[in-house]
Amino acid sequence: MAHQQYQEALNVLHECMESCNHCFDSCLKEDDVQMMTKCIRLDRECADICGYLEAAITRNSPYVSELASVCAKICDDCAEECAKHDHDHCQECAKACRECAEACRKIS
Amino acid sequence: MAHQQYQEALNVLHECMESCNHCFDSCLKEDDVQMMTKCIRLDRECADICGYLEAAITRNSPYVSELASVCAKICDDCAEECAKHDHDHCQECAKACRECAEACRKIS
Amino acid sequence: MAHQQYQEALNVLHECMESCNHCFDSCLKEDDVQMMTKCIRLDRECADICGYLEAAITRNSPYVSELASVCAKICDDCAEECAKHDHDHCQECAKACRECAEACRKIS
Amino acid sequence: MAHQQYQEALNVLHECMESCNHCFDSCLKEDDVQMMTKCIRLDRECADICGYLEAAITRNSPYVSELASVCAKICDDCAEECAKHDHDHCQECAKACRECAEACRKIS
Repeated sequence: MAHQQYQEALNVLHECMESCNHCFDSCLKEDDVQMMTKCIRLDRECADICGYLEAAITRNSPYVSELASVCAKICDDCAEECAKHDHDHCQECAKACRECAEACRKIS
Repeated sequence: MAHQQYQEALNVLHECMESCNHCFDSCLKEDDVQMMTKCIRLDRECADICGYLEAAITRNSPYVSELASVCAKICDDCAEECAKHDHDHCQECAKACRECAEACRKIS
Repeated sequence: MAHQQYQEALNVLHECMESCNHCFDSCLKEDDVQMMTKCIRLDRECADICGYLEAAITRNSPYVSELASVCAKICDDCAEECAKHDHDHCQECAKACRECAEACRKIS
Repeated sequence: MAHQQYQEALNVLHECMESCNHCFDSCLKEDDVQMMTKCIRLDRECADICGYLEAAITRNSPYVSELASVCAKICDDCAEECAKHDHDHCQECAKACRECAEACRKIS
């Protein structure tokens, strides 16, 4: 079954979606929110595409490869931006995004 | 953090989303697809709302309670329909939906 | 057909989704982004639920009424927050949200 | 503003999302649902990506081009499948998908 073949990717995507949405929420609570606007934007982009790809994998979509390719790019960008900020939620998000980008490249 | 307080619900929602989308895919491959149309419909409804609620919880949405209430109702209906069919994917989906409905009621 | 019966609601929901996402994008470009964090959050909540409800209506979901009820509440909150800010995008978003809340109440 | 520059694409995407979800709903009501399974699948794929791309455009996502490229491919496939079936909803959906594929290629 497609969704079992991709089980590792599903776990990593889910972790990345969680980390990005948590980072989005946390950035909006920071004192230096002005510094975090690019991070807030990319967190939303990345959380949304990870959630979308998760759903696509589990319904055995014929477009997993193409979507994973877009997702890898968004994860790369989000990882790069988050890595610039010292907040724990940003560092954790950067890590989750890097792992997710790698998993996406494997299935794209 | 909101997404940790709800960790059990997140796991159950994710499992339910996977089961519903797998059931959707599997029903469309069955010989008796004509018998499965209500199941196919509810699988999509249920997978979509579970994915939506997962994302809402992780971004610390103020509307988790209201969304969980709608999600519980959809899970109940999907469980009831899936339980009528002997296919393994339907029986597994019914189980995942019942657990998810219960978890949703706890947070609604 | 369900999606024609609801044509007015679909138009208003679509307008609201656009206005909220445009307001989200615009708030993140403002100098006083620190003042806009609640608006940014609610813009995302509101855009997402409006898009979700649009899709649900067009696929003839049995849960339009329940979803419209949640959507009305989110639109109300987003309208109230946006109305506090003088930016054009906030004032326009408040107007779109108020109209959408009303349309949602009609179908809930 | 991004969402105005893309206004034509937004209209076409919205029309396509509606047509695909209406076709999904209608296929599940047909007597020959066994013949429609590929159509049902692609309708969901196409409606979901069109809705996703609409939202991405309106929030001024940096990934509109990549997403539009995936969306064009899905629209092409859905148009090809729908065109095989005589049902009005399939023929209308095929037309909406072809227009949407073209609009997506312009912005990809």
